[in-house]
Amino acid sequence: MRVLILGGDGYLGWPTAMHLTTQGHDVVVVDNYLRRRLCREENVGPLFEVPNLHERVRIWESASGYKIPVFIGDLTQWDFVQEVFTSFTPEGIVHYAEQPAAPYSMLNRRAASLTLQNNLMVTANVIFAVREFSPEAHIVKIGTMGEYGTPNIDIEEGWLEVEHKGRRHTFLYPRQASSLYHTTKIMDTDLLWFYVRMWDLRVTDLMQGPVYGLFTDENEEHQSLLPFFNYDELFGTVLNRFVVQAVVGYPLTVYGKGGQTRGYLNIKDTLQCVRLSLEKPSDNGRLRIFNQFVETFSVNDLACKVQQVGSQLGLNVSIQSVENPRIEAEDHYYNPANTGLLDLGLEPHYLTDEVLAEMIEAVLKHRHRIQEHQIYRKIKWA
Amino acid sequence: MRVLILGGDGYLGWPTAMHLTTQGHDVVVVDNYLRRRLCREENVGPLFEVPNLHERVRIWESASGYKIPVFIGDLTQWDFVQEVFTSFTPEGIVHYAEQPAAPYSMLNRRAASLTLQNNLMVTANVIFAVREFSPEAHIVKIGTMGEYGTPNIDIEEGWLEVEHKGRRHTFLYPRQASSLYHTTKIMDTDLLWFYVRMWDLRVTDLMQGPVYGLFTDENEEHQSLLPFFNYDELFGTVLNRFVVQAVVGYPLTVYGKGGQTRGYLNIKDTLQCVRLSLEKPSDNGRLRIFNQFVETFSVNDLACKVQQVGSQLGLNVSIQSVENPRIEAEDHYYNPANTGLLDLGLEPHYLTDEVLAEMIEAVLKHRHRIQEHQIYRKIKWA
Repeated sequence: MRVLILGGDGYLGWPTAMHLTTQGHDVVVVDNYLRRRLCREENVGPLFEVPNLHERVRIWESASGYKIPVFIGDLTQWDFVQEVFTSFTPEGIVHYAEQPAAPYSMLNRRAASLTLQNNLMVTANVIFAVREFSPEAHIVKIGTMGEYGTPNIDIEEGWLEVEHKGRRHTFLYPRQASSLYHTTKIMDTDLLWFYVRMWDLRVTDLMQGPVYGLFTDENEEHQSLLPFFNYDELFGTVLNRFVVQAVVGYPLTVYGKGGQTRGYLNIKDTLQCVRLSLEKPSDNGRLRIFNQFVETFSVNDLACKVQQVGSQLGLNVSIQSVENPRIEAEDHYYNPANTGLLDLGLEPHYLTDEVLAEMIEAVLKHRHRIQEHQIYRKIKWA
Repeated sequence: MRVLILGGDGYLGWPTAMHLTTQGHDVVVVDNYLRRRLCREENVGPLFEVPNLHERVRIWESASGYKIPVFIGDLTQWDFVQEVFTSFTPEGIVHYAEQPAAPYSMLNRRAASLTLQNNLMVTANVIFAVREFSPEAHIVKIGTMGEYGTPNIDIEEGWLEVEHKGRRHTFLYPRQASSLYHTTKIMDTDLLWFYVRMWDLRVTDLMQGPVYGLFTDENEEHQSLLPFFNYDELFGTVLNRFVVQAVVGYPLTVYGKGGQTRGYLNIKDTLQCVRLSLEKPSDNGRLRIFNQFVETFSVNDLACKVQQVGSQLGLNVSIQSVENPRIEAEDHYYNPANTGLLDLGLEPHYLTDEVLAEMIEAVLKHRHRIQEHQIYRKIKWA
């Protein structure tokens, strides 16, 4: 299948690109290095250097024999979108091309504006490009479980049948997020759902939970093919951050009560989910929504796991509750469904002690590069 | 009260500005003439000439004695937003500053992009400006009943309590619109609701139905103070269009079966609703939502009324069903609540035969200016 990966330089984009080539797909990657630029501007960076996309493609080709053409440019600009879609007519599009960090989106007005404009205009341009150049292409969009927030009822898979005053209607599951970044994902869903109905598009919207890990089948032997591994407060996800904190002897920073519960998944499962979605596409005129996570943990659960496995590896790990910089429920009901991707064939990886030990050991090799000042900057939501 | 009217040149913006001055408020109007520009580009125009905003303000001052300062500029540009909010610190903000036409938003890619960017970035900038310059100011935002679409259950006023598997949660009422314009209003609601929770803003979101009419207490004696009265397929609303069609002997164009039912209101009631919302503001941290309409009609109901009253005035009015260019239900359940504004003090005007006759007579005076080629252009949604 001819697959366009938008945001192909990112934490998930690059591993997805390599993975899909090994599964027999023709892959093209597109990126504008936005995340690299924002990290530089905010003086944060990944645990180890990551070659640029042209270099990664060259290294991957010499390791595997698979070629991946690269387009560098800004998908908010229609002339570039047009160039990409007229050079390579995709059958599947994986849309990761968004400013991906909730804390960054809450940093200040300019960061908020950038997040809003970038994320919505890229999504709109992808829709317009599919309509104009490849109306049968299947869009696989990365949404987030954060779109749902933490309602007091079960979170179903995308849709909710409501009975009200004796009548029934099935709605898009109501959404209420807790960062501007997550809110732009809600707005993406609004836009996709609208145009699916108008133009009979084929869309799969993956409501993904926080991802952890760095190893995939394609990169385990090649340090230079690893994805970004950010451990800073802006771009790092919680488990990756905790592992770095444990390694460097920094207390694990639990926000508030630590009862915030979310659905997590290993980066290997992101690749499976995206591949399965592409290979078994949604029908025309259907917005197919999957909740993409494997198991749920509270922040306290994760901190305890890291402390326990870290201790077994000889690390002295402490946990510190800090004032929650975010505005969110710290103790709440959480029961989301996630059968759709399992039905499609997902074989989940669980967060075992072995998996956690492997992550800690990988980070230990780069211990000397950890910059403590990146870890905790107290960026406030309000 | 010090009130900023964003989009103060529009069909509703200008009548609101005049009305609020007569009620003792200090009013400033802001506009960038976007709607005039789009009409010119699309070769459509109002039934009679409308002076520019500086002229309207001058005429209104000589008629009434009230002064209204004018800012001309683009609210998607932060430097202009900053200039407005530092020159005049508002207590209330009426946000009409959006591309207001559903058919325009469906015209082509550029029109869609413009609608999306303009509407969302203005809403975002209003939120950021309130946060930075006037955190206690109350935002009165014009949303639309179209945000709800036509679900098979009653439409409540903004919120829906759901019982699901033995648990309960109150959600923002799920939204699903039938044009990109209406979808941008959903996205505005997402954005406002998010920042209300984060930053304790005071917001009233008015889910308004289609408005009809042109006379208000302030303009009845002054032709040059009337609002835009568009009768074209792009910018004209349905009843205003039908009246013009009746006057010029063009068949009333009913889309499809004509069972599309909506909640309507007289322009006089828009002014009341906005004033009442301003004078009895929402609390901090609360998104107050009202459904702003007075009575519901199907398109067939409206066509029949215009035909009947037109005949009494000696017009020969025919009704013609045309292929529906839109993708929408033509026959559906519709039972929306609208008690909130009545409780606040709204004294509704109903669409009586007298009101309709007054509209028809007003349009008859300008019969010679009606350009038939504007009336029906078959702009298709899909």
